[in-house]
Amino acid sequence: MSRQKRTVYYLSDRTGITAETLGHSLLTQFDGIDWNKINVPFLDTVAKAHDWAARINAAAERDGCRPIVFSTLIDDEIRSLIAQANCMIYDFFGTFIGSMEQELQQPSAHAVGRSHGLQNNSSYFNRIAAINYTLTNDDGVSAKNFNDADIILVGVSRSGKTPTCLYLALQYGISAANYPLTEEDMDALRLPKLLDPYKHKLFGLTLSVEQLHLIRQERRPNSRYASLAQCQQELDWQEKLYQRLNIPYIDTTNISIEEISTIILNRSGLKRHLYGQ
Amino acid sequence: MSRQKRTVYYLSDRTGITAETLGHSLLTQFDGIDWNKINVPFLDTVAKAHDWAARINAAAERDGCRPIVFSTLIDDEIRSLIAQANCMIYDFFGTFIGSMEQELQQPSAHAVGRSHGLQNNSSYFNRIAAINYTLTNDDGVSAKNFNDADIILVGVSRSGKTPTCLYLALQYGISAANYPLTEEDMDALRLPKLLDPYKHKLFGLTLSVEQLHLIRQERRPNSRYASLAQCQQELDWQEKLYQRLNIPYIDTTNISIEEISTIILNRSGLKRHLYGQ
Repeated sequence: MSRQKRTVYYLSDRTGITAETLGHSLLTQFDGIDWNKINVPFLDTVAKAHDWAARINAAAERDGCRPIVFSTLIDDEIRSLIAQANCMIYDFFGTFIGSMEQELQQPSAHAVGRSHGLQNNSSYFNRIAAINYTLTNDDGVSAKNFNDADIILVGVSRSGKTPTCLYLALQYGISAANYPLTEEDMDALRLPKLLDPYKHKLFGLTLSVEQLHLIRQERRPNSRYASLAQCQQELDWQEKLYQRLNIPYIDTTNISIEEISTIILNRSGLKRHLYGQ
Repeated sequence: MSRQKRTVYYLSDRTGITAETLGHSLLTQFDGIDWNKINVPFLDTVAKAHDWAARINAAAERDGCRPIVFSTLIDDEIRSLIAQANCMIYDFFGTFIGSMEQELQQPSAHAVGRSHGLQNNSSYFNRIAAINYTLTNDDGVSAKNFNDADIILVGVSRSGKTPTCLYLALQYGISAANYPLTEEDMDALRLPKLLDPYKHKLFGLTLSVEQLHLIRQERRPNSRYASLAQCQQELDWQEKLYQRLNIPYIDTTNISIEEISTIILNRSGLKRHLYGQ
């Protein structure tokens, strides 16, 4: 039997980030379907709505079944034009906003572009400051700024510190530094001295030896650095260190950067400085 | 009249990113309410569900009105425990998944952690590669790699190139380089020579003179670099350059990094390599 094919549209007045996030999480619950996904951000005029309604109808005819449409459209006229197309619409605002107006006993603003628009300059500056901080304090290059860190991630080379720091900065406005644990400190089973004053800010990353080996192979194939034996030794050492010094840590094998970041936020009790707050 | 205060919970089996996105986009439609937002990721056991149901009840009593709950919980037992608490629930999966099962004529997987979990190793490597590429090619430091760029952002100092590149890499897996336009090239009204072979990959950023002045003031207060006159001159020059060379460009004043990135994706026709695809 051939796989089901479905065309999916994400329609939004602005970025489409909300429509995509919500649609994506629903689609991942259905296996074995080939999705043809089409992002339509900035669908903000009646003319564009006519155009996209026509394209949706054409897709329905071509596919032999109606497209799925995830919509965060707010404008009533645009919504009603799309609603006349041959599609199954999941309308995120339409579904919930009426009930919320009732619950909160006030009308909604009905304004577009609020979820991912610029809220205010101070939030923008916080975010830029966190990104700059994180870039300047990547890979232990300038430990003199660790006073200003919200958190300092530690782990051996290629344990995922940099992407996690960047995600924390970009998504949550957190000033995240990182410091690589190196072989030199192994024998003594201790932290580099310069981290001593910041022990309460440390959060460790670890991962499976197979994963670390794979990642290091990409970088320096068949080196001692990438060998299973070397990876195993460094991982054993860092986990002993985390346990001995009571540094909270997380095994990042098979989890995404989003999950790692959320777990770290959750376990460290850090306050996010942006988004949803 | 004092402002309405409401406690809001984001409940999720995993990261909570979907629940927050949904809730945040709805809450931004209601002005003048003080939200007390509580993120509850990894609500994945019956014991935790009992605990959080009790906390929700306590909040209802304390506030004198029931909390708003945005839920992407999937487990039926956990959902029904929360449903018994004194709150108004917006149940994302419960609302849409039944209709989708009918539309797609197949049952949903009912599996947690799919939306922001690690889909596969190749997607992880793509993302890490894009982040590494972007970090290595920040601020024009190594133009020799521009062959590998999906896109090259240009603009004067502090026009927002770096945060936008990082967002494109992290969120969409796009290898985004950037190159600063400097005073040296002003008189000739031309691009730096090394960008010539990559003209088709260029995308320009610009912003208002007030915003640029404000951002540069943060960095080097009261310098010539930050002066309104200097900012104005550089901005005039770069806009002339964009127009003369037909480089697509975007005015980033008052729009967020998410919006800038989506507009760039949309206008350049770049394919995202991650997320939702």
